[in-house]
Parts: sequence; C-alpha cells; structure tokens
Amino acid sequence: MQESCCTTSLDHSSGKQRQVLLSSMEAAISVLVSQFKVFAGKDGSSDTLSRDEFHSLVASQLPNFVKNASNPAAVDKLMGSLDENKDGELTFMEFWHLIGTLAIQHGGFSQ
Amino acid sequence: MQESCCTTSLDHSSGKQRQVLLSSMEAAISVLVSQFKVFAGKDGSSDTLSRDEFHSLVASQLPNFVKNASNPAAVDKLMGSLDENKDGELTFMEFWHLIGTLAIQHGGFSQ
Repeated sequence: MQESCCTTSLDHSSGKQRQVLLSSMEAAISVLVSQFKVFAGKDGSSDTLSRDEFHSLVASQLPNFVKNASNPAAVDKLMGSLDENKDGELTFMEFWHLIGTLAIQHGGFSQ
Repeated sequence: MQESCCTTSLDHSSGKQRQVLLSSMEAAISVLVSQFKVFAGKDGSSDTLSRDEFHSLVASQLPNFVKNASNPAAVDKLMGSLDENKDGELTFMEFWHLIGTLAIQHGGFSQ
C-alpha cells in the first residue's frame, strides 16, 4: 500500500469538495468507510448492512481475518453478536466493533 | 489504493508465517495496526502510545481527519478524552475509539 495517496475528501462543515493528500492511516480509514458503503448500498437502506450484504462483505472483504468466513451459519452467528439492537441490520457503529476485534487479533494485542 | 495487496500475515493459532492475499479492507486494517505499532514502539512500552508518540502520530498520520492536529493543547485534550484509565498512555483499544470516531465523521454516518 503506497505511503500516502490522494483522494477527494468532502469537507463536512462547508460541504465543499477538497482535494487532500491523505496519509496511509487516513487512506485506510477511507477504504474501510467506502467498502462498507459499497456493500451497504446493495439493497434496502444504504446506511446499514442487511444479512445478505453482510455475508457478501465478509466473504469477499474479510476472507482471511474472519474465521469460517465462508460458513453461512458462522457468519449468521457473527452478525447476531454484532447486531446490538436486534433489528436484523448492522449500522456502521455495530460493524466497527467487528473491525476493532479483527484489528486487535491481527495485531496480537491483548483485548 | 490497490484493490487487494498481499502481505505476510502471522497465523496466530499456529504461530507460522503464512503468505496471504489480503483484500483492500484487510490491508486497511493491517495498515492501521502496523502504523500504531510504528509509533507505539518509539519509547517506553511498545504496546501503548505515550504523549509524545501520540502527538507525532496525529501530526503525521491524521493531519486531515483530526481537527487542530498541529495544536498541542488540542491534541493533549483529545488524548485525555481517549485515555480511559488515565495512565497517560493509550492502549490500542483506547486508540481504536478515535479511529472509529474519525471513520464515522469521514463517512458522514450518524453517531
């Protein structure tokens, strides 16, 4: 992954498009957000992941980091553990807990 | 950022090095972990960010996403809000809350 890459970043306060040079950490955050939106936008609400959207995200974007990523029952169980309000959808906040857990495991940090 | 890039990923259960093709999301997680370790390893414990390490990480890796990233008092205040056990250091978990907040802001998601 390049040390830093440039991407357009919307300036939330002014709403104007601003071309900025993102650092590698900012670019990584940007990838996680944009990939969530790619899968969340496939059906229903574009702000949340449905069951099908979550399954396809895990299978294609987290095949190495999520154990049993290709096992539907295991992915259903994982989704259930993340879906705090039990509405059958995952908000970005609920999804983010998974990314944090995977980062901790990948980094070998204590929980 | 390439669609997917390949990196060595330690297989935690067996301890063996395994060459895997990471997806863009996995590569992004890997960047966030490795950059945390680069800065956390500069002084003292290599598992936590000291005040100086946090200041240099924010200045060089989060200059666009953290408001007032170059203002020491603002960064001190930010660190204080993240340092849950008030030991003057940030664990990866404490640091991860900041990354989540920045991702939510960058994505324009409701908190």
